[in-house]
Amino acid sequence: MSRFFSEKFANLTPYTPGEQPRERRYIKLNTNESPFPPSEKALQAAAEAANNLQLYSDPTCKMLAEKVAERYGISPNEVILVNGSDEVLNFAFMAFCDKTHPAAFPDITYGFYKVFAELHGIPYEEIPLRADFSVSVEDYIGINKTIFIANPNAPTGKTLSPAEIERILVGNPDNVVIIDEAYVDFGGESCVPLIHKYENLLVTQTFSKSRSMAGARLGFGIGCEKLVADLHTIRYSTNPYNVNSMTMAAGYGVMCDEAYTQKNCQTVCENRAFAVAELKKLGFEMTDSKANFIFARHPAIDGGELYTKLKERGILVRHFEKPRISEYNRITVGSRREMEALLEAVRQILEEKK
Amino acid sequence: MSRFFSEKFANLTPYTPGEQPRERRYIKLNTNESPFPPSEKALQAAAEAANNLQLYSDPTCKMLAEKVAERYGISPNEVILVNGSDEVLNFAFMAFCDKTHPAAFPDITYGFYKVFAELHGIPYEEIPLRADFSVSVEDYIGINKTIFIANPNAPTGKTLSPAEIERILVGNPDNVVIIDEAYVDFGGESCVPLIHKYENLLVTQTFSKSRSMAGARLGFGIGCEKLVADLHTIRYSTNPYNVNSMTMAAGYGVMCDEAYTQKNCQTVCENRAFAVAELKKLGFEMTDSKANFIFARHPAIDGGELYTKLKERGILVRHFEKPRISEYNRITVGSRREMEALLEAVRQILEEKK
Repeated sequence: MSRFFSEKFANLTPYTPGEQPRERRYIKLNTNESPFPPSEKALQAAAEAANNLQLYSDPTCKMLAEKVAERYGISPNEVILVNGSDEVLNFAFMAFCDKTHPAAFPDITYGFYKVFAELHGIPYEEIPLRADFSVSVEDYIGINKTIFIANPNAPTGKTLSPAEIERILVGNPDNVVIIDEAYVDFGGESCVPLIHKYENLLVTQTFSKSRSMAGARLGFGIGCEKLVADLHTIRYSTNPYNVNSMTMAAGYGVMCDEAYTQKNCQTVCENRAFAVAELKKLGFEMTDSKANFIFARHPAIDGGELYTKLKERGILVRHFEKPRISEYNRITVGSRREMEALLEAVRQILEEKK
Repeated sequence: MSRFFSEKFANLTPYTPGEQPRERRYIKLNTNESPFPPSEKALQAAAEAANNLQLYSDPTCKMLAEKVAERYGISPNEVILVNGSDEVLNFAFMAFCDKTHPAAFPDITYGFYKVFAELHGIPYEEIPLRADFSVSVEDYIGINKTIFIANPNAPTGKTLSPAEIERILVGNPDNVVIIDEAYVDFGGESCVPLIHKYENLLVTQTFSKSRSMAGARLGFGIGCEKLVADLHTIRYSTNPYNVNSMTMAAGYGVMCDEAYTQKNCQTVCENRAFAVAELKKLGFEMTDSKANFIFARHPAIDGGELYTKLKERGILVRHFEKPRISEYNRITVGSRREMEALLEAVRQILEEKK
């Protein structure tokens, strides 16, 4: 830290992204990327856009906003495009939280919520999940806080139903409720249809997972027009050209290729079912994940040890050395071949432990 | 504004980017873009990177940081890559300004500095330029503020010498001085070599202008290792994957093609000299711009009127309806053909005024 760094950040602990090692080729099951290449339509559109790279990207993201709106049956004024969905989460913390509007989110969830709160000096409460890692809806009723819920949750993959989320929305009429649907396309049920019913609902989604575009950095927020306008005010005060023109075009391209996205999601769900069944046979306990990852522990091996032994075998999974979940690993659902390689490695590791 | 928007932003006026009209093809001389296409090496590298778009980009930007470091004769730990140089400016406001470290910048300069200060609730002083739009170095000595100076300045194009900036650095040893060199490649002198001498110097640059990559969103900050580490702390608490993989690759590509960049810069300087000489003949008064734009007024026509009449003729320039500069227009230096079209339109407009 330099002697010039503002004191308000003296205790700030940044987010730790999953490892992106370059020194060795791993089977990467640690950052919930798609095992499938990007859509050909995305690649073509990005390449065309690159030819005009000397010109600024469209700060209004007009064409893409219209395309996203069409896909979700909303108006372009109800969507904001961002440089990865982390950005819209950051904007939401800025726009809708302050000293008198503290934040609240589960104790076990996407680790960035806490970082954003600390970055902006926003008081926050971490509300414990139940012992089975489910969200206790009652704990969120009438709390007068700006609520962030990942649905499906990470790293557990567990979901709330839209009806349960409606109870939270109704129970906090003076606060925004942000539903982070990064993983919704793998079996969750989206709350987007609720945005016309609840002015306090903001839904965030990403192109990183189901649409095979993690490297392009594209996410979006959906909410009523006024909420989205507030987020645009923050965006135009932060980085009006936040989405580059290649990514914008690629996003448009993949949105024209929904059949490809849906087929990939279906395959991930099938591979998840396969891997879950096989891991169960090997003695693993797992949450009922509706995301593109599995959250698993084994009675015979510590989570950290399994992580290390898999890494030695060239397989990266994500281990969180945190209270309540250190026995677990979060394992991205990859291709069938990758799942088979994982299972084979796990079998060997468990065999050695005997 | 929604009723949920934090009160602290009630009076926030976002930045207004230059027009990016899509309804008609203009000769765009309003946002200081390059008239030249991106480097072929940039396009090839971006296309290759796109094939792995399903994987997250490297949050450390390792290869590109090394390349930038090599180019500027510094260490990779002394550079931070960002999603357009606006992002590193935003990070600098967050990291190095607060209630006890107010910001200071010229009254006439890049309009975003003021927006960043207001966004983060940072007190700021706008220090008037002299009547000839030059920065009065004396006004910045011993002011105990975090200083932002665009060099060349925008929209005037006027420069300070590194020796003058050294006086500001020495005169504010307990504050960071940020030198925004977005336009330095068109005849300014960079302060990058000073970073090893002054721990309070942060230099920011961009790939948007001289490197024909405005649409890719890529900028960087250069400073001593500790300053850069602070900015990384903010970055990892905001958006660790801030630079997408296509842009990262394109940035690497264009850095491998410095001859192309330098040739383009030289052509812009030649076109600037040509346009300045011709505009002078037509009676314009101009600042001595070392940027890829001209800042010009004419005694016979109001700045706003000239802007409007040029727009009617399909030529976009930038007019700021602000005190002291409303008589002027900022005109991007484009290709020779574009400059000729501008001059022809200006001649017609002046003729009509007679």
